[in-house]
Parts: sequence; C-alpha cells; structure tokens
Amino acid sequence: MRLLAASSCLALIAATAHADPLPSWNDTDTKASIIEFVETVTDPDSDSFVPVQDRIATFDNDGCLWSEQPAYFQALYAIDVLKEKAAEDPSILSSDILTAAAEGDMDTVMAGGVEGLLEVINVSHANTTVDAFQADAYDWLTTATHPATGLPYAEMVYQPMLELLGYLRDEGFTTYIVSGGGIDFIRAYADEAYGIPPWQVVGTEGNTSYEVVDGVPQLSKEGGISFVDDKEGKPVGIIRHIGQRPIFSAGNSDGDFAMLEYTTSGEGARFGMLVHHTDAEREFAYDRDSHVGQLNRGLDEGPERGWTIVDMAQDWGKVFPSD
Amino acid sequence: MRLLAASSCLALIAATAHADPLPSWNDTDTKASIIEFVETVTDPDSDSFVPVQDRIATFDNDGCLWSEQPAYFQALYAIDVLKEKAAEDPSILSSDILTAAAEGDMDTVMAGGVEGLLEVINVSHANTTVDAFQADAYDWLTTATHPATGLPYAEMVYQPMLELLGYLRDEGFTTYIVSGGGIDFIRAYADEAYGIPPWQVVGTEGNTSYEVVDGVPQLSKEGGISFVDDKEGKPVGIIRHIGQRPIFSAGNSDGDFAMLEYTTSGEGARFGMLVHHTDAEREFAYDRDSHVGQLNRGLDEGPERGWTIVDMAQDWGKVFPSD
Repeated sequence: MRLLAASSCLALIAATAHADPLPSWNDTDTKASIIEFVETVTDPDSDSFVPVQDRIATFDNDGCLWSEQPAYFQALYAIDVLKEKAAEDPSILSSDILTAAAEGDMDTVMAGGVEGLLEVINVSHANTTVDAFQADAYDWLTTATHPATGLPYAEMVYQPMLELLGYLRDEGFTTYIVSGGGIDFIRAYADEAYGIPPWQVVGTEGNTSYEVVDGVPQLSKEGGISFVDDKEGKPVGIIRHIGQRPIFSAGNSDGDFAMLEYTTSGEGARFGMLVHHTDAEREFAYDRDSHVGQLNRGLDEGPERGWTIVDMAQDWGKVFPSD
Repeated sequence: MRLLAASSCLALIAATAHADPLPSWNDTDTKASIIEFVETVTDPDSDSFVPVQDRIATFDNDGCLWSEQPAYFQALYAIDVLKEKAAEDPSILSSDILTAAAEGDMDTVMAGGVEGLLEVINVSHANTTVDAFQADAYDWLTTATHPATGLPYAEMVYQPMLELLGYLRDEGFTTYIVSGGGIDFIRAYADEAYGIPPWQVVGTEGNTSYEVVDGVPQLSKEGGISFVDDKEGKPVGIIRHIGQRPIFSAGNSDGDFAMLEYTTSGEGARFGMLVHHTDAEREFAYDRDSHVGQLNRGLDEGPERGWTIVDMAQDWGKVFPSD
C-alpha cells in the first residue's frame, strides 16, 4: 500500500511538472519566452544556470499586478479617507488640491501630478498607527468597489500575473513587489492577494515613528514622505531592501524603466517585461498619453534592449480571476 | 539496501535532533531558557505555538554578534579609509574630528559621540559605488587585524551566537540583523560570517543614487545619512524592512532597548536577550560607563521585563570560533 501510494505520488508529481504553469497565458511568443527563460536559469546543465538564492524577481504593482485606472487605487482610497476626515475637520483641506480631492474632482487632483497625489495621500494617511492604517486599507480594498467593473478593488488583480508569480516561486525564485505605491498600503493585502509576505514588499515610505503610548509601544505614520520608490528610486529601493540585483523584473510604465534597465544590464540571463495595456474590452487601453502608467521610453527602447512587451489583448486568455 | 539507507538516515536525524544545539553555551539557566522558548513556540501542541512564517528573530550586530571594542569596527574601517583619502586630498579634513580621525586620535573622535562617528563615516564612505564599497570593506575585514586580539576583524564573531543563529534557523526561524551599523558595510560579510543574506540585514542607510555612467547602471553612495537604525529607529527599521513584529530579539546595549521592548510587548511567547559583556579575560568587560555599547536601562529594567541577561563570562564556554 505504501509503495502504491508512493508511486501514485510520483505520477502526480510528474503530471504536475508537465502541466501548463501559465494556463491563462495564450500560446504566443511571449509565453514561450517566459518559459524558455525560466527553464534555462533553472537547468543545472545550462551555462545560464542561476542558483536559487540569486533567483530574485521584482514586480511593479499598479498596472502590472493589478489595475491602475481611472487612478491608482491608493489615491482612490486616500480620497475616501480624506472625505471622512474633512467631514469631521474641514480645516485639513488647506489647498486647492485637497479641496478638489474631497469633492471627488479627480481631474484637478490628477492635473496636480505626483505632487498632488502625494499631498492627498500625505494628509489622509497621517496620524494613525501602521496597524490601524493597514486594517482600514484592507477593509476598503475588500469592500469598496471599482466604478467601471463593479468588482472589489482586491479582485482586480491579473490572473496571468498571479500564475507567473506562482510559477516563478515553484521554480525557486523569490518574488518581490517594488512599487511606487505606499509600502504599508500594499502590505495590507499583498500576502493574501499575491502570496507575497510583508518583507518582500518594497514601496514608497512615509515618515514613521516609534513611541510608547500609555505603556503600549506603537509605530505611527507621521505624515510626510521619506522615500519615493519610483523611477530611479526603484533600483535604490531594491539595493536598500534586497541588497542584490534581480534577474527578472516586470513593470508596465516608464516609472519601471530604471528597474528593468538595472536588472537586465547584469551579467548572465536576464528577463525584462513590460505589460502593455492594449485591452479596452476586458480592462483598459492606454500607454503614451495616459495620466497614470505612462509608457513611452519603454515602448521605444524596450524591444532593442531585449525586453518582452506583453500585449494584454493578445497574450492573456483572461484578465481578472473572475473573468 | 534502500530501506537500510533510509533507516540509517532516520537514525542520523534522530541523533541530530537530540544533539546539543548550543555546544558553546554552558549549562546554565540562560541556555535552558533559550531552549525552552524555542521548544515551546515550535511545538504544535503548545498554546504558544508560532507558525514558521511568524518566527522572526532580530539581532543587533556590534557587541551582540561580534565585538565592538575599542570602537565599532566600521569606525575603525572608516578611519583607515579616511587616512588613505586624506593622503591624496588633505582638504577633505574639514573639521577637528576629521583631522583627529586621520591622525588616529580615537579619544577625540569618540568624544564627538555618534555625530562625530557619523561625520567620519560620512566622508570616508562617500563617492563610491555600493559594489566597490562592499568589496573594499570585505577586503579590510578579512585582512586588517584587531589591535588587542591580533585576529582579523571578521573572525571576532561570537561562536555561541553563531550557534544560536543556526539553531533558530534549524527550528524554522528567519534571522535578521537589525543594527545601528551601516547596511552596506554589514552586508559585505553577513552572509559569509552569519549565513544571513543581504535581504535579511537592516541597518543605518546612507543616501544612495542610481545613474547610468558610460552606459553602465550603477548605485552610488552619495554621502549623508538617510536613516539611522538605532534606538527608537530600530522598531522603525523593522517595520520598514520586515513589516512584522519579531518574536525574538537580541541586543547588548541601550540602543537595543526599543527593539526588545517592541518585540517582547507583542502577544504570546516572546524572548528578549541582552548580552552583558562581563568577560575581561576572553573579550572585554563594559556596561554602564562604556563609550560604545552603553548598557544602563537594559540592566535596570530588563529582568523585570522578563528579558534574559547573558553573562558572557558565566554562560559562554568559548567566545570566538578560534578560542
């Protein structure tokens, strides 16, 4: 009986090994290039073999692992929080951007660029403990719904990317998020959504303080930004947190250019991926002129740098898990 | 034959499980308290069982995992580098502290406190790439020798703490360094010395920039400090890098007080450890009046907080691996 069980077990393992690791990816060159890379760096007989501890993969979050339209979900959350706070204390609306945000005037907020968004986030996310902030963010993400899809935000993750994360981990990779979004916000759901624990999330950091209040130690978000993990900040965030150059990086905007450049300029086999939002039917179509996730230089230079451009409409069999 | 091999294997595993995991620790209450804690949190039948992903242990470095007398080794390294730089360009010695450091006048440097040390480190460690800095630091650590012991600095790690790190990892813990020392400096040797990879090192961070020079992406140390991972900064460093409260923390000075306070105030079984330098024969004896690793509040409040005070002279059978 034991031998029988063992042999069934082996058969199952063999079947699993040959099963399609990326079932939501269509059988295009893109899927083939991913699998070829992974098989090459994990093959001990390959000249491009990479030991497990060096199999580091980094992923942007907004627009790469989940949606980012009509605005970064964290910005939408920040506006909801700002409205609540302003209802109690209108004096916090100390600028035109903040007033516009509290009125839901997204055009004015987005016209303020990253600085405008940071101002909203800064005011809405300050003066709370990290624990309370994450509990509130988690609640919002799993209950508030997206204006276009009607899905809870937490369900707007990309099924093909979930499969890619799992495939890489099954092959010995460690998968990190390296996002321009807030590190505390992403950690509120990254483990549940992506299987990525807090210590594998790198993001923009707010000023944080430690103090003992009524005998209870607590970590508080003070307001103000201490580190912006975007553009040239992404390789810096990687060296601060991971301390080692990745061999695989995925992004979707020019905010990820430096990360892909850093990753793919290392020696040996490297993989750079840009998710191109081409699917207005199932998600959103945008690139060069978008107010979020703008992608210009990556489209121009990516192919000659050997980066893989994912055509969402063509390469993905489904977008969201619920599709 | 296979069955025989398997049964030999099992016998070996059983023997290993019962072998002393901490052979360089004397059979004192200290050793017993460590083993009791580990056995409790790893026992699935215990009310205090902690799942593997929550078994996070953090260790201070200077004075906890290796020596810190007559000054932090990083400071001694910084002074050596400063001397070399000043020989080429004396104009960098723009303050009394820097001049004293380049002349080897440690008393003046130490009298300048942490700010004085940071000034020396700041000037000596700036304007280099992270890669070049780490290669140089590694070279120094493995070749320069300590004035009192004559050992290369890299060999002045504590054998009992190496065993503790290994024991915890064998029992499913993830072991982090959380140090006031520089993150790039510690990472230069932490993997080789302690089996701790770069992404499990938290430390003081200098300003770092990413740029492409002659077509080659590089990360450079700009000079200036962006984050001080000491005292109340340690819980902040933990939440930034790990994102979760540890269940075990070890330190040796009041710079570790906040970390131990944060760790041991969480729910469930917790372990706080302070290494007390009591051994003038084999290492150094210092605590309340020391210019480095000062330990006052920890000695006063540690016992009533349930922290374990390690008496190096009494609890350790050996100090350095070469003893």
